[in-house]
Amino acid sequence: MLEAPRIGDLPSGALDSMADVAGVRVGHCTLAQGAVQTGVTVIRTHAQDPFLHKTPAGLAVINGFGKSAGLVQLQELGVLESPIALTNTFAVGTIATALTRAAVAANPEIGRQLPTVNPLVLECNDGYLNDLQAFAVAEAHYAQAYAACSPDFAQGAVGAGRGMSCFGLKGGIGSASRIASTRAGRFTLGALVLANFGRPDALILAGKCIGPVLAQRLQAGPPVAERGSIIMLLATDAPLDARQLRRLALRAGAGLARTGSDFGHGSGDIALAFSTAYTVPQLDAGPLHPQALLHESALDPLFAAAAQATEQAIVRALFAAETVLGHGGHVRTAIKDIAPDWRALMSHEVSTRICTV
Amino acid sequence: MLEAPRIGDLPSGALDSMADVAGVRVGHCTLAQGAVQTGVTVIRTHAQDPFLHKTPAGLAVINGFGKSAGLVQLQELGVLESPIALTNTFAVGTIATALTRAAVAANPEIGRQLPTVNPLVLECNDGYLNDLQAFAVAEAHYAQAYAACSPDFAQGAVGAGRGMSCFGLKGGIGSASRIASTRAGRFTLGALVLANFGRPDALILAGKCIGPVLAQRLQAGPPVAERGSIIMLLATDAPLDARQLRRLALRAGAGLARTGSDFGHGSGDIALAFSTAYTVPQLDAGPLHPQALLHESALDPLFAAAAQATEQAIVRALFAAETVLGHGGHVRTAIKDIAPDWRALMSHEVSTRICTV
Amino acid sequence: MLEAPRIGDLPSGALDSMADVAGVRVGHCTLAQGAVQTGVTVIRTHAQDPFLHKTPAGLAVINGFGKSAGLVQLQELGVLESPIALTNTFAVGTIATALTRAAVAANPEIGRQLPTVNPLVLECNDGYLNDLQAFAVAEAHYAQAYAACSPDFAQGAVGAGRGMSCFGLKGGIGSASRIASTRAGRFTLGALVLANFGRPDALILAGKCIGPVLAQRLQAGPPVAERGSIIMLLATDAPLDARQLRRLALRAGAGLARTGSDFGHGSGDIALAFSTAYTVPQLDAGPLHPQALLHESALDPLFAAAAQATEQAIVRALFAAETVLGHGGHVRTAIKDIAPDWRALMSHEVSTRICTV
Amino acid sequence: MLEAPRIGDLPSGALDSMADVAGVRVGHCTLAQGAVQTGVTVIRTHAQDPFLHKTPAGLAVINGFGKSAGLVQLQELGVLESPIALTNTFAVGTIATALTRAAVAANPEIGRQLPTVNPLVLECNDGYLNDLQAFAVAEAHYAQAYAACSPDFAQGAVGAGRGMSCFGLKGGIGSASRIASTRAGRFTLGALVLANFGRPDALILAGKCIGPVLAQRLQAGPPVAERGSIIMLLATDAPLDARQLRRLALRAGAGLARTGSDFGHGSGDIALAFSTAYTVPQLDAGPLHPQALLHESALDPLFAAAAQATEQAIVRALFAAETVLGHGGHVRTAIKDIAPDWRALMSHEVSTRICTV
Repeated sequence: MLEAPRIGDLPSGALDSMADVAGVRVGHCTLAQGAVQTGVTVIRTHAQDPFLHKTPAGLAVINGFGKSAGLVQLQELGVLESPIALTNTFAVGTIATALTRAAVAANPEIGRQLPTVNPLVLECNDGYLNDLQAFAVAEAHYAQAYAACSPDFAQGAVGAGRGMSCFGLKGGIGSASRIASTRAGRFTLGALVLANFGRPDALILAGKCIGPVLAQRLQAGPPVAERGSIIMLLATDAPLDARQLRRLALRAGAGLARTGSDFGHGSGDIALAFSTAYTVPQLDAGPLHPQALLHESALDPLFAAAAQATEQAIVRALFAAETVLGHGGHVRTAIKDIAPDWRALMSHEVSTRICTV
Repeated sequence: MLEAPRIGDLPSGALDSMADVAGVRVGHCTLAQGAVQTGVTVIRTHAQDPFLHKTPAGLAVINGFGKSAGLVQLQELGVLESPIALTNTFAVGTIATALTRAAVAANPEIGRQLPTVNPLVLECNDGYLNDLQAFAVAEAHYAQAYAACSPDFAQGAVGAGRGMSCFGLKGGIGSASRIASTRAGRFTLGALVLANFGRPDALILAGKCIGPVLAQRLQAGPPVAERGSIIMLLATDAPLDARQLRRLALRAGAGLARTGSDFGHGSGDIALAFSTAYTVPQLDAGPLHPQALLHESALDPLFAAAAQATEQAIVRALFAAETVLGHGGHVRTAIKDIAPDWRALMSHEVSTRICTV
Repeated sequence: MLEAPRIGDLPSGALDSMADVAGVRVGHCTLAQGAVQTGVTVIRTHAQDPFLHKTPAGLAVINGFGKSAGLVQLQELGVLESPIALTNTFAVGTIATALTRAAVAANPEIGRQLPTVNPLVLECNDGYLNDLQAFAVAEAHYAQAYAACSPDFAQGAVGAGRGMSCFGLKGGIGSASRIASTRAGRFTLGALVLANFGRPDALILAGKCIGPVLAQRLQAGPPVAERGSIIMLLATDAPLDARQLRRLALRAGAGLARTGSDFGHGSGDIALAFSTAYTVPQLDAGPLHPQALLHESALDPLFAAAAQATEQAIVRALFAAETVLGHGGHVRTAIKDIAPDWRALMSHEVSTRICTV
Repeated sequence: MLEAPRIGDLPSGALDSMADVAGVRVGHCTLAQGAVQTGVTVIRTHAQDPFLHKTPAGLAVINGFGKSAGLVQLQELGVLESPIALTNTFAVGTIATALTRAAVAANPEIGRQLPTVNPLVLECNDGYLNDLQAFAVAEAHYAQAYAACSPDFAQGAVGAGRGMSCFGLKGGIGSASRIASTRAGRFTLGALVLANFGRPDALILAGKCIGPVLAQRLQAGPPVAERGSIIMLLATDAPLDARQLRRLALRAGAGLARTGSDFGHGSGDIALAFSTAYTVPQLDAGPLHPQALLHESALDPLFAAAAQATEQAIVRALFAAETVLGHGGHVRTAIKDIAPDWRALMSHEVSTRICTV
């Protein structure tokens, strides 16, 4: 396991990743050649056909400056019916088409006897390192990421995270898990983020405002408008419905805020939570299927887990990343390269943000 | 002007179409060959670059069973920044990419010094007449529809409307306008719909329940689940902000309801309203630009106009359509072919929906 | 049963009122003396303690120009935990306090060991007939309305409906029911409205635009801004969750639109749907309780029932009302008094709204 | 100025309170006798009649477990039209009535020739220290708080904050301000909170997790479900519309999260932002009034100010509070009493929340 600050008091699952939620798998397709530094990441919520066995899900649009596809139907119906795909902003259309084709291949009656499918694609803008205008992501890259899905997946500058920036450092994919002990039992919550947000001087690492020091080392120019974004995905094996999952998703925002984000104007901050405890059938063939949900008053430990796992996943994205050179000679430096002394920095945190009178 | 029932008491503009709102233009690209019966329709809100001069807009998701792109950012920021494109469900990704490429061609710094662009694509499922799985719509079709934009545009089975069905009849594109006289002056409101919804027996034509008779003539089988949708676009030259435009958009639903729709589960009923009275600059170069908005209490005539123009536009979509033979030998008959006696039917309306005790 | 136009093709329950949904009861307290023409109406969703046994509910704010209490928590948690009270705008605070006191009386640990209670009070503005500034509604009137709750309840100018106006006529309380046959079985849907909206000339009665004729008879002056509102309550024994109930509630808007409403700016149009199929316990003492919900694809018949029952309930409010003389010598005439010939009017409907070219 | 940790890098206004926004005044009425430990706090947004000169406002319901009045109309119309009143949960109805009476007294045509007024009352549950069931708050207490409105107001255990608890400590009213330098000029943002949330062990003070130590000193029992709430009010002189103010309000949540809140299930976390830069007239008598708004891309400094001022205001609520003995012998200890050594605690922060691997 990578060395990085640990967030919060809740225990982690065995992998300390989203894959601690049984059935969840993640795969990447990474494009890293010269000016093309981008990719696709796919999250499968279970091993079954996602269209026939829909996954209950809820959405919190914390800041809607984003170009995702599939969120309107998700909000109305409270289910996912495709894998979740992450990619760069300009590739959303291509990957949505790829998801549609894959669903049709698996279910040839889609768009005929069956309804159409709602492909879910979320994105961040990796245009600093990646030549967006190359439109380098192709439909085939979705298939590669899908094929690579596994409980054991890389973090950092991989997949959709390849070209992403975070607090002026190299960002990307990060993941973590936390165990929530509720009156109704213990549940696992896993977070996976595509982290591409934040001004350098704003970074708060595990409560320590080390951003200003890092900004100095980065010789960051005057603060520019944030053009980032973060996608925060939460998985849990707790039996929740779409309304409860929306509430859970919103708590990812608490973790995000603790890293120093003010949910900047230009940052598409989207959180989505899903449950693996049950599925909703596409076809209504048989009798109604009873489902026991968690009582509302048992949610607090899950809310804490959501906030902690999200903050941890962001920290992971930073610490797992490697320095990347991309489009136009732009470089994003990894935190481990610019601050190998991060432990010392945290101990000697001096910041104008938090000074006592 | 096509013969068709006229809806409501408000006067129309000169064209009785959305193009009565100065600057608004509509263009189609129609694909109609064998099993491919589909297309693209583009709406330009003004003659300027839509990315540099954003159009204030508001959204009402009446039923979110739909796969549109671009709505999340529109809700957050209250502006359109691309032309509006309509197409079939499976083509959303392709047309979103086309919109992005067109924006980049016009503004080469998009995704570099400028933010990325939010392409707006709305869709309905034309899978009954059109072989969706052919993925026949290509990026070039967007350019063709864009190039065709004109204040003088066809209605019925054209553009994105080519393969659409409405109340078991041939549907498609319809448009209308109404003049709203408010205390603050007269304003024009134009509606354009992509009509693809409704069970045959549910049709209410200008208040007359002629659906059951038409259903009999159509030898419609037992009612099937609605898999349709309707996109309702409203343009106005009244100076409204995004919040007011959302309120306006919602009133399209009143017009929709009067045609017999219950906002069926499987129907993506999306309404979007925009104002041409002013634009919002992409770049914040100069001093703030003051804008006078309509006082809230002056909105009622616009609300009435929205409801009436939407109902009228749906009626137009039906009456402008021609019978189309498509995919799998499926046929959708035009109302003018199956009910040339519609005037008589309306006079002799007999329906179980509305019987007096 | 009162003579009135019948709406729609779906069958009604035995009472054709909201009380066809087993367990639902309605009670009124009517204040009708001189300038005071107002009251309170209470709806109980079941016979148990509403705080300990919460009722799943969903909300659709069609036009939020209203002063209700309790809706924010209802949206977050998806449950009702008090009876529903209807009253005039200025009495919301008083009745909310009455609901709180009643809940505390039944559960003395509320606000101590138990959470506080969320009283739900919905309102319309009856200021034309009722001297709002008299603040005539007292806490005791809630208790009286509650005590009067019964499956057999009056409609028209009673309870909260006493002082309400609708299309320039006397409005008030109306109710209806429809039976929805779904693949999962037959369910009952009941509607109850507090109808206080609409300009005289806008009335569409069962599809017939008789508003203009009635407006002439009423010698209605020039149209004034709508200051009305309508509260639309839907009850069903179908097992739905809060998300589905929100979708159902929205369909009340389709019924409302068909009576001639454009959801006017000044009209608080609020729809709320609840299910009696199950309850959610306040206390989470035992194991989780499994609940079978209706499959989403079975909702369409319920949506149709919601639209039809709402339209019917509005018609009932008009036809059940009697002429009322109130505050400042203002009079609202009952439809049965001004249009005893309504059948003939409907047959000879002549309207500018719907003319064929 | 009270000694307390200072949050963030942005400068404060002269008072470092919400009253730095010109025209904003705050008044308290405090009830503190035996088992009654509660009160009313009133915020006036400007010196004019609030009904005739409405204040643009936006709302973010972060967790809707709350019983406020007035929020539905605020969301629809984007304006405040009464002073803002804060009080305890059971007093919402009484204070709403008081606000209505006050508006009627100032504008005798309210509910007659003028529309009704929308009273805005926000609340938290002070039932631990205050005997809610005494219903001690009366209408007259609103008038007293209103009369006391001043730019110079007390913080801590005063007004509505008298009985509130925060992280197991004494909470209540806190305020702060920050100056945001945008491309369009410098603007002031003021926050005022009614802080009544948080488990003892969760407190993060200016990034330092001192909660566990304080919890130990408090001999807090096992964590109980949160039954708190926080109301977060933001005032700014920046010219923003309702949509922008909603965005601003949401950023209060970032400040809240940094104090340790996960937006707990039982905590009504409501944020509301208003602008003093202009007003919206009740009466639409004259020509339209042009208003220059801030460009969206200038919002980031205000977002940062919102997060920092909110976090600071919460810290102030804690540090300004005094220990209170109330209902049932319950005591809430002030942080200054239980942790006079808070500076040392912060320096020696040891916490399981943030440990490095």
